[in-house]
Amino acid sequence: MLVYNLDHVGIAVRDLEASLAGYRERYGVEPLHREVVESQGVEEALLPLGGSFVQLLQPTSTDSPVGRFLLKRGEGMHHVAYAVLDISEALAHLRSQGARLIDETPRPGGRGAKIAFVHPGDLAGTLVELVEPAGA
Amino acid sequence: MLVYNLDHVGIAVRDLEASLAGYRERYGVEPLHREVVESQGVEEALLPLGGSFVQLLQPTSTDSPVGRFLLKRGEGMHHVAYAVLDISEALAHLRSQGARLIDETPRPGGRGAKIAFVHPGDLAGTLVELVEPAGA
Repeated sequence: MLVYNLDHVGIAVRDLEASLAGYRERYGVEPLHREVVESQGVEEALLPLGGSFVQLLQPTSTDSPVGRFLLKRGEGMHHVAYAVLDISEALAHLRSQGARLIDETPRPGGRGAKIAFVHPGDLAGTLVELVEPAGA
Repeated sequence: MLVYNLDHVGIAVRDLEASLAGYRERYGVEPLHREVVESQGVEEALLPLGGSFVQLLQPTSTDSPVGRFLLKRGEGMHHVAYAVLDISEALAHLRSQGARLIDETPRPGGRGAKIAFVHPGDLAGTLVELVEPAGA
């Protein structure tokens, strides 16, 4: 199997604190990890839910992918992330299938992971993030 | 903890067979389960990814929630589903928090589960499905 886990669902929010309070009050979940990922222009919080995370993303500027998404679409689901053992191999496989990639090579994500995005126009209108977790 | 797993991400698609072929070819995943859920006007396929599923949803008519979503937004992520042990208790808790519910009482979902939806206007622009799996 090329992908082995649904790592997280990324949700774009305007106010990270208010959204975290909502998840705490309504669903009883607390963030396990918070991080500013400068390269993506976001502050993120990871809420553990079984073997996956809900990743809440607040842009650090309007001129960032998540900032532009919020302006265009409003708050909501932004991407889904699938875990892979070897992201370079996964990208090579996707290229061989003619997939429409956003990132031709991996770049750094949160928690020391290597990540790469696949264009939502490639399959099922869904922005897909490939994640090779640190130490995988 | 009120919710204990990210059960699935629901993705609205126009052509279930083509999307399943895409997931097989690009990501190496095969459906574990397929079902027509008449009450929701969808044919669904569940792709196992670790402890969660990707749920591909093709409407059986344009006059259904997923059919209307496709007309308005096109293909893409439709909802995220969180597993709960007791859906009636979860709904009572959400009501006590002033949450904006779509379903005041549980209704039947796929695989014999009880489900209920929370309005995307409630939190983070996200349509949330609560799932009490059969036998939970």
